[in-house]
Amino acid sequence: MDDFRFRLRLHFGDRLMLGPGKADLLELIDREGSISAAGRRMGMSYKRAWGLVEEMNAAFEDPVVESSRGGTSGGGARLTEAGRTILDHYRHLTALVEKSGAEDIAAIRRRLRDMSEKK
Amino acid sequence: MDDFRFRLRLHFGDRLMLGPGKADLLELIDREGSISAAGRRMGMSYKRAWGLVEEMNAAFEDPVVESSRGGTSGGGARLTEAGRTILDHYRHLTALVEKSGAEDIAAIRRRLRDMSEKK
Repeated sequence: MDDFRFRLRLHFGDRLMLGPGKADLLELIDREGSISAAGRRMGMSYKRAWGLVEEMNAAFEDPVVESSRGGTSGGGARLTEAGRTILDHYRHLTALVEKSGAEDIAAIRRRLRDMSEKK
Repeated sequence: MDDFRFRLRLHFGDRLMLGPGKADLLELIDREGSISAAGRRMGMSYKRAWGLVEEMNAAFEDPVVESSRGGTSGGGARLTEAGRTILDHYRHLTALVEKSGAEDIAAIRRRLRDMSEKK
């Protein structure tokens, strides 16, 4: 079954919710070098992507993304060391579920009714 | 920080979403011996709790909850062997995050800005 996925959301009280959306955004900013390009890839408005970055930058001691607007290079953004570390920890958590939890996931999946049997 | 929590949602394509709500409901049905009592504890309407149980019973090969309505005992519900096994696998996954992921969670948490510093 290729259609399995899971979502892990970390809630740090009212300080921050860190889930797959923000993690993907950080990863895409790292790849694209631009907040707006990263947001676009996620089908997110520029405003929304900036809002999520600002939310993370405000929640953490050190900013997770550094950006320069305009300039000769047309501006850009990059993940900071803090951003990379936080993203790595989040990815490590999801890898835990995926790898160490593979048997549990498979066991639940095996008990699902076959779709073809459903009306 | 005692206000940390996380939510793990398993999506099996369009067959089933299994997350903390359904897991808690199964656990409470097991404890309460009643779907409506379990739902009540979660601030859920009778209809909503029944709907979630029916959704799970339809998604799995074997029912996760067996219920008897009415009768001299006033009806009741119990977790089946399948229901218990599925719940155990889900709990095992969340325990993985909690235990094996404790260091990652602590590392993210340590980087959060102190609330008292926020305006």
